[in-house]
Amino acid sequence: MGENETVRVGYQGEPGAFSEEAVWTLFPGATPVPHRGLRSIFEDVRAARLRYGVVPLENSQAGSINETYDLLALGSVWIVGEVVVNVDHALLALPGTRLEDISQISSHPQALAQCQEFLSTLDADIVAVYDTAGAAKRIAEGRRTGEAAVAAPRAAQKYGLEVLVSSIQTDPANQTRFAAVSADPTPLGVGDKTSILFGTRNEPGALYRALGHLASRNLNLSKLESRPLGAEPWQYRFYVDVGASLQSDEMTDALEALKEEVTFLHVLGSYARWREDGRPGERSAG
Amino acid sequence: MGENETVRVGYQGEPGAFSEEAVWTLFPGATPVPHRGLRSIFEDVRAARLRYGVVPLENSQAGSINETYDLLALGSVWIVGEVVVNVDHALLALPGTRLEDISQISSHPQALAQCQEFLSTLDADIVAVYDTAGAAKRIAEGRRTGEAAVAAPRAAQKYGLEVLVSSIQTDPANQTRFAAVSADPTPLGVGDKTSILFGTRNEPGALYRALGHLASRNLNLSKLESRPLGAEPWQYRFYVDVGASLQSDEMTDALEALKEEVTFLHVLGSYARWREDGRPGERSAG
Repeated sequence: MGENETVRVGYQGEPGAFSEEAVWTLFPGATPVPHRGLRSIFEDVRAARLRYGVVPLENSQAGSINETYDLLALGSVWIVGEVVVNVDHALLALPGTRLEDISQISSHPQALAQCQEFLSTLDADIVAVYDTAGAAKRIAEGRRTGEAAVAAPRAAQKYGLEVLVSSIQTDPANQTRFAAVSADPTPLGVGDKTSILFGTRNEPGALYRALGHLASRNLNLSKLESRPLGAEPWQYRFYVDVGASLQSDEMTDALEALKEEVTFLHVLGSYARWREDGRPGERSAG
Repeated sequence: MGENETVRVGYQGEPGAFSEEAVWTLFPGATPVPHRGLRSIFEDVRAARLRYGVVPLENSQAGSINETYDLLALGSVWIVGEVVVNVDHALLALPGTRLEDISQISSHPQALAQCQEFLSTLDADIVAVYDTAGAAKRIAEGRRTGEAAVAAPRAAQKYGLEVLVSSIQTDPANQTRFAAVSADPTPLGVGDKTSILFGTRNEPGALYRALGHLASRNLNLSKLESRPLGAEPWQYRFYVDVGASLQSDEMTDALEALKEEVTFLHVLGSYARWREDGRPGERSAG
């Protein structure tokens, strides 16, 4: 029996979603548990109804998934791993449908954004729904003629639809980076990457000085994301991914110094950086 | 006759949209020209079919409008002014509709994001359309029962709809910042703010050193935004708003030094910072 056989892992969407593929890659043998939205995954992970969740962080073409970054800021849930999935979108419809019959196309807003160039060439209404595979399922189950979904070719097989046009994403090398989150901070592999969140004072050079505590220790920033603070209009919080383990001396020193500089500082997790050649290093949990 | 009487200014949406209000504030007396999407505004401005366009940059609660930032990166169009508009959303439907009758709610994706907390309490399908006022118009013209739109209360008056619930945005102080863009870089007021765009080398400390050229001259960064570079997955370009005129000595020096550090550097515009107390300083064009 595999180590993950009974582990339940939440993901957004229906079977056939790209998020489900991310679950399989990070947790082979686990049971993927479909969720309608990202918020309920975080709630179930926080309440220990789920041991793990797998949530999208950013797409190589469309950018960050703001909702995930906002949910990470709420705390009590840690990033324990990451995985990058190739995202190849197709236009799916009921068998026998012609492209010129399509008057409505539905999918997840991120998928629609990733295929915007192709979609703008069609004269169809664009409808945002909760996930890509769910859009495909809805067309199949409702026998909806004249409608198409943007989803994985795998979703066509799953729901008995036909691929009208394949690889419709603007960037052929379209990829999405997902995070595994858990209420237990223990990483899935050996941690060599750390995600932090902080706010800066509203004064000249505040962000620069904050980043300086990382740069002066030669720590590599692989990602910097700003999001509105919420309560205070036009104030921002910053998410930074750093290429070092939380336990490293450089990181410990940097965070010690950073604390004095910023209005708040949270460690979101320390985990194994995803490597192109397969799964992250040795697994210390799962 | 007003100076702007014959000036045509493009905006996204239908009459009653928040973008139309931004046009009125920046260009009193101008003729607002509705557009279906942001891309066609940029195209018409670039081709001099429109003298100005007014496009959303960021919302105080939902964050940056990625599409605008991506379109600004294409060049040949300059930011010449900015304006902040209070965004108060209402749920609109045909007169006599009750909240429990609503099975579908449509609006612009940004408006839906700004009202997410309220919308998640309802059991209705959420449909993304091109703009807030357009969603209201569609319900009014199609006499669509059981449907509601998220839009300005002003759109209810305009299209003969009823306000079912008012002020449904998550943040009561919800605001959106808009830019005026033009093919002519001459600012609308006296420039005291400059927007720049650059790419960094993929090496430790590259962004930190780039920001250092601004910070060391005591220039204030009011906004930093990262977006995917597109062609190269997981590489980013950075948008920075600096609180100084392009003509100032500090800014000239900083850009000179920055050029040596980055892979590319574009000035997106130098313009009058929006002030809460009304319109930007003296107008030098219009």
